[in-house]
Amino acid sequence: VLAVSRRRRTVKGPVTLGIDVGGTKMLGLALDTSGAVLGEVRVPTPSPSAIRGLEGDRNALLEAMAEVVSRLAGPLRSSSGLSYLPVGVGVPGLVDDAGVLRFAPNLPFGQGLDIASLLSERLGGWPVVVDNDATCATVGEWAYGAAARVSDAVMVTLGTGIGGGIVSEGRVLRGANGFAGEIGHMVVDPSGPVCPCGRRGCWERYASGSGLGRLAREAAHAGHLAAVVRLAGGDPEAVRGEHVTQAASAGDADARAVLVELGWWLALGLANLANILDTAAFVVGGGLVEAVRLVLDPVNVAFGEMMEGRHQRPEVRILLASLGETAGAIGAALVAAEYGRRKAGT
Amino acid sequence: VLAVSRRRRTVKGPVTLGIDVGGTKMLGLALDTSGAVLGEVRVPTPSPSAIRGLEGDRNALLEAMAEVVSRLAGPLRSSSGLSYLPVGVGVPGLVDDAGVLRFAPNLPFGQGLDIASLLSERLGGWPVVVDNDATCATVGEWAYGAAARVSDAVMVTLGTGIGGGIVSEGRVLRGANGFAGEIGHMVVDPSGPVCPCGRRGCWERYASGSGLGRLAREAAHAGHLAAVVRLAGGDPEAVRGEHVTQAASAGDADARAVLVELGWWLALGLANLANILDTAAFVVGGGLVEAVRLVLDPVNVAFGEMMEGRHQRPEVRILLASLGETAGAIGAALVAAEYGRRKAGT
Repeated sequence: VLAVSRRRRTVKGPVTLGIDVGGTKMLGLALDTSGAVLGEVRVPTPSPSAIRGLEGDRNALLEAMAEVVSRLAGPLRSSSGLSYLPVGVGVPGLVDDAGVLRFAPNLPFGQGLDIASLLSERLGGWPVVVDNDATCATVGEWAYGAAARVSDAVMVTLGTGIGGGIVSEGRVLRGANGFAGEIGHMVVDPSGPVCPCGRRGCWERYASGSGLGRLAREAAHAGHLAAVVRLAGGDPEAVRGEHVTQAASAGDADARAVLVELGWWLALGLANLANILDTAAFVVGGGLVEAVRLVLDPVNVAFGEMMEGRHQRPEVRILLASLGETAGAIGAALVAAEYGRRKAGT
Repeated sequence: VLAVSRRRRTVKGPVTLGIDVGGTKMLGLALDTSGAVLGEVRVPTPSPSAIRGLEGDRNALLEAMAEVVSRLAGPLRSSSGLSYLPVGVGVPGLVDDAGVLRFAPNLPFGQGLDIASLLSERLGGWPVVVDNDATCATVGEWAYGAAARVSDAVMVTLGTGIGGGIVSEGRVLRGANGFAGEIGHMVVDPSGPVCPCGRRGCWERYASGSGLGRLAREAAHAGHLAAVVRLAGGDPEAVRGEHVTQAASAGDADARAVLVELGWWLALGLANLANILDTAAFVVGGGLVEAVRLVLDPVNVAFGEMMEGRHQRPEVRILLASLGETAGAIGAALVAAEYGRRKAGT
């Protein structure tokens, strides 16, 4: 049943399961205390269906999570004799301390759902912990990825929008309600483009995948970006971020110029965060990592120029995420393990 | 020698001294463990002098601090039999974990000074802890002021610029180097007015005393603000923030409109911080508190509209500071006490 057991090792200590719930797919992993991935399962995230209705959509979502758990746990339980495995779930949106998904523009039919209780019920009482997906990715990269052993780090996930997670003084910062790290809606230009959140000039209008597409379409309509427009089938309006990255990778100077502009906006937001939090390192992850890799030098230059007291403070490193798409599921499994330890009082 | 002993009480437990070093004056307080202020001393902050030179200026600065300590400690030592008192110092700028003032645009001759070691030496080995002034004010308001018993709060001091301090999950967040809380240089409009820091559109170009002056002079030059211009002696270029506050207090609608604009920018930065940190409450302090009090309702409305997922999360409170100008010195004394407890391992 397991799709891949990427590192076949003896199980070291208790195993926990992590599920990263995306808008289109779910990735589940089984993780032991050494960080070894013992199993991996992918299923599509159910799409909302008018026939099924809201309650049906919510049931389908929980059922898909339960299926991931069942497929991951089956072989592990039979071999280990465990009666249950703790489950961590990362979801896109604001998750409160009780595991309820409070606000979820990217998973609207899940908004308000008490995922922790309902999934636990479906699993016959297994412990379930739910957290924000970007917070989970932060936990993953902090434990086993690019941010390992950094006491003050901020993870920035650049996808359609911008997610984030904050590690401060050796702890994941969750805030008053568990909502900390919503860095993408930091307004960086109140007269900028309208954001789906209703405001103008949120950081994710510039330094995300959709921001890159917008910057590129503006350049394309202005008559630049011939190579990129060709990749998009000749229509400036069809230009997406991936066309820019593809052309820039192939050496197109105009495409690279757009990535440098994206990088400038990225640097601006990172500098804001570093001034606020006194961060030692940033970990940039998400679908835009390859685009950022192409312009990491200019990003570092712009970032340095934007830091207050730059010559009087240690350099802040900008690192690229190293766990790829598995960071969220690994982090979710770690969140479940941490929760288990807290409950056990150890 | 003591200027005022504001609350005459029996000394409860160890006494620590706190000094808040401003650009023009220093305020020193003696504080016991019950929070009672046992003594208060003010001296001017030495101005830089071409005759004295840099080393002379630095010596004068340390000497003034030592004088504050001596005047506060004298009567306390004779009555209590203590051989020394721990000293906390709040200074404007970036202070590293060793107590060195790394970056200080508002106290330039102090930049690079190892205040902790040099003042301790001058005091014959008394323990000295140095921290950022806004961090100290945060500690003060968090212990005895408006933020008392709030686990996740951000203090925002609105003066010439904007200072800040972050309390997160029941701890003062200091960051990787002790520099956390530099919220005033969060860029909120990269095409905005130039900031002394070299960038454009820093938050403190809008929501500070100097920002208020700028907004008002723009309105005055545009022919509005007749009452405010009269208060400034008839010259639009002479308009300062305090003229606006004065006119608005007296009921002038145009002046109030400028304060509402200031408040909109304040709300914008607060919403950015709340989205990043999941703050439960803000404490607004500093010289601009009275101006903000006049427009607290529109500030709250604008802030609410800017919060991501506003209807799905608890309301974030915007509070006004309650310790006034003593917050920094009280906090500095508390930082010294905390340091003493850490050293003692209790």
